Amino acid sequence: MKNLKAFLSALGSHLSSESILTDPHECNAYGTDWTRQVANVSAVLLPRSTDQVAKILSLANELEIQIVPSGGRTGLAGGAVASKGEVVLSLSKMNRIDSVDRLSKTVRVQSGAITEAVHEHCKQSGLLWPIDLAAKGTCEIGGNLSTNAGGVRVIRYGMTRKWVTALQVVTMQGEIIELNRNLEKNNTGYDLLQLIIGSEGTLAVITEATLKLTRLPRFKNIFLFSVTSLEQMARLCEEANFGPFHITAFEFFSQKCLHTVQEKLKRISRIGDTAPFYVLMEIERSSNDLSEVEEWLGKILEESLVVDGSLAQSSEDEKASWGLREGITESIAVTGPVRKYDVAVPVSQMVPFLTEGQKMFSRMNLSIDLYLFGHFGDGSPHFNLVKKPDCSMQEFSNQCDRFEIELFALLKRYGGSVSAEHGVGNLKKHWVTYSRTNRELELYRSIKKAFDPKHLLNPGKILDI
Amino acid sequence: MKNLKAFLSALGSHLSSESILTDPHECNAYGTDWTRQVANVSAVLLPRSTDQVAKILSLANELEIQIVPSGGRTGLAGGAVASKGEVVLSLSKMNRIDSVDRLSKTVRVQSGAITEAVHEHCKQSGLLWPIDLAAKGTCEIGGNLSTNAGGVRVIRYGMTRKWVTALQVVTMQGEIIELNRNLEKNNTGYDLLQLIIGSEGTLAVITEATLKLTRLPRFKNIFLFSVTSLEQMARLCEEANFGPFHITAFEFFSQKCLHTVQEKLKRISRIGDTAPFYVLMEIERSSNDLSEVEEWLGKILEESLVVDGSLAQSSEDEKASWGLREGITESIAVTGPVRKYDVAVPVSQMVPFLTEGQKMFSRMNLSIDLYLFGHFGDGSPHFNLVKKPDCSMQEFSNQCDRFEIELFALLKRYGGSVSAEHGVGNLKKHWVTYSRTNRELELYRSIKKAFDPKHLLNPGKILDI
Repeated sequence: MKNLKAFLSALGSHLSSESILTDPHECNAYGTDWTRQVANVSAVLLPRSTDQVAKILSLANELEIQIVPSGGRTGLAGGAVASKGEVVLSLSKMNRIDSVDRLSKTVRVQSGAITEAVHEHCKQSGLLWPIDLAAKGTCEIGGNLSTNAGGVRVIRYGMTRKWVTALQVVTMQGEIIELNRNLEKNNTGYDLLQLIIGSEGTLAVITEATLKLTRLPRFKNIFLFSVTSLEQMARLCEEANFGPFHITAFEFFSQKCLHTVQEKLKRISRIGDTAPFYVLMEIERSSNDLSEVEEWLGKILEESLVVDGSLAQSSEDEKASWGLREGITESIAVTGPVRKYDVAVPVSQMVPFLTEGQKMFSRMNLSIDLYLFGHFGDGSPHFNLVKKPDCSMQEFSNQCDRFEIELFALLKRYGGSVSAEHGVGNLKKHWVTYSRTNRELELYRSIKKAFDPKHLLNPGKILDI
Repeated sequence: MKNLKAFLSALGSHLSSESILTDPHECNAYGTDWTRQVANVSAVLLPRSTDQVAKILSLANELEIQIVPSGGRTGLAGGAVASKGEVVLSLSKMNRIDSVDRLSKTVRVQSGAITEAVHEHCKQSGLLWPIDLAAKGTCEIGGNLSTNAGGVRVIRYGMTRKWVTALQVVTMQGEIIELNRNLEKNNTGYDLLQLIIGSEGTLAVITEATLKLTRLPRFKNIFLFSVTSLEQMARLCEEANFGPFHITAFEFFSQKCLHTVQEKLKRISRIGDTAPFYVLMEIERSSNDLSEVEEWLGKILEESLVVDGSLAQSSEDEKASWGLREGITESIAVTGPVRKYDVAVPVSQMVPFLTEGQKMFSRMNLSIDLYLFGHFGDGSPHFNLVKKPDCSMQEFSNQCDRFEIELFALLKRYGGSVSAEHGVGNLKKHWVTYSRTNRELELYRSIKKAFDPKHLLNPGKILDI
């Protein structure tokens, strides 16, 4: 990249030498994420302060250096990949977590703080930042905000964007902007805070945030259900919406997923394995008296709303229940090469969409196994395609491509999303037109231009300019 | 306005004659809101469908006709005022409310639906759209969305923007865009739905929305507390944050407010009137067993966290409690001319901010009475300034202006907002710089330009171009 030498040399008077990495091997580790794309990184910067970030960006803007902001790099869409010689701006050294404010139920953090560390910190005050996802031990708050992370408790709490009362961001021009400054109410024009959340580092670099917290659940319980059909699952979900509790997770998986978890990870289901679909439902209650919940379960069983249903009676039971749902990805990984689709439809369309999706899959007669699971209560299913042993990698890839075209056409008919929670990054850019119109993409471009007219910030992510 | 005749004549083939008003007296009723500004309206259009809205806007764009979108016109910032000969586009005839979807807990409505009608409709399914504000019997969903309405239950539910899963909007170019299509999860680029919410009709016209609903509270209770100081109020709020319930309202008012409500509206406080501040706290619980709540109240009283506290024992008690808080505006209105400031600071800054604000008011030695009340738990106090009888209107206005300058300077120091929930409209445009930086306003202009390059949609609202 031209000007790189001048850029790094100018930074030398603002950053200490250990904050600037240039060894190619060391650098490339910062240029990829869980998509395992090949990195090509010119340099890595590890600022210690917002002022340093501002200095980096204003110099980069002046010298036309492309910057890729980077957090825990657990993304699944290539949003933090640097593969074209960009400079990586890692926020990982900015990981301060302030004291919890118990009056406003908020906590101020720097964007390099690890999500799980924030959870642990808030827990000591009886509070919860309710974004809970598999990568929480590695991912960072800045990444959660940039991708508007989801996770398993969206049905109760919604996405990341609902749990933020302030952002400190630095624009590509090096200006530090404090957005919303921890105000619960602030109707003074367009909500730039919401615009930045989910923009995958293409508009500005998030350096700090004030996170809104909620009470830790007082009492939790876990149910496992088996059901005869998707229709029955939807009826159960609707019934549970009005049960004597709050649903905090309503996850589903197919019999094929259960069998793989049983076989590959030796996990045990206490409600058998002969039904076509299974539901893990977690609930929250304010009382430890189980009688109302047991009565509700009795009614569900009596009315044959499920094949079988069971309430976990111990923390071992609870772990075993979650173990079935959470073991799916691992058990599939050891089964064979996999292609994953993280899509969404309106919750009310889950039954017809999944029914058509399965029929379409059968009709195509592919040498592929389909594993269907995900967040039923959020309208967010995962289609995992796994290669069968007798199929070549090339053939697997071709068949997945064929399936993808059909799946996306179906999604478009249902007004669905080609990326429920993983974002667009560089991997899903070409899919976006299935979920967004040309006019929307045109508005995206105008917004991008307003923030970053030289297209230097996370170039090539979300859309090509 | 030039081209008006051509515009109305072209519309004649798309709208029925009763959908086009041109009688000046009839028209002007549609050009003002609760700010009572003088209207000057060229024509009023009352479309019956989104297609008609699209036709109106594309023709207006072509002929350069300025359009003011209009709902229930209960705004307090002049966001729906048409005072410069604009054409008013009223959505009031588009008020369809679809069946509630009990699986996804959503309801689709047209933007002319009255907020209270939506509440009543959803209540029949045991569900709640939790935006609850004084104007609910008159205001419309489109207005709630355009202003990101707040209200008395923000502490529990947040603002309007958290309770929307889809918007149908029409751009000034006449394009119909379906934003987010009722998806709980949809991370495919910048969130234009959130950008439109709170944009006060300056970016696009909202024609339909899918509203996210929540369960109706199972059991509610109301407390009244008297406290010796703002510090004590903050400690009570923090303690209540961790009580055996969810807070659904934490409202406060000064002794002066209480005395006026007692005197002017003959309402009675069951906890006396000798303390400087009062709190109305509403809570939600999942059980009708009061023992835990009474135990909590006992502890609060025993530890002298309040002067006095009382739990309403009947629905009459509850009404009487809310009557004190809700009567303030009415009792002030009959006391004298009033200037109102609806501001916000971080909740954690309420005590120092209000303390300084009161001291500043005393120091200024004005011929004005200050009534202090509002949403303590959201950091959103109302400063109402009321003229004393011996002060002239001119002097009152001058003194208010002097106070305003000091108040806004104080707000700026606390990183506060000059408009917590009422929006900017045309009244607060010149205040916005206290809460937003020039760079933010520059970004606003770029965004406005992307949507409405000719500046025809709600011109002069939020900011001058």
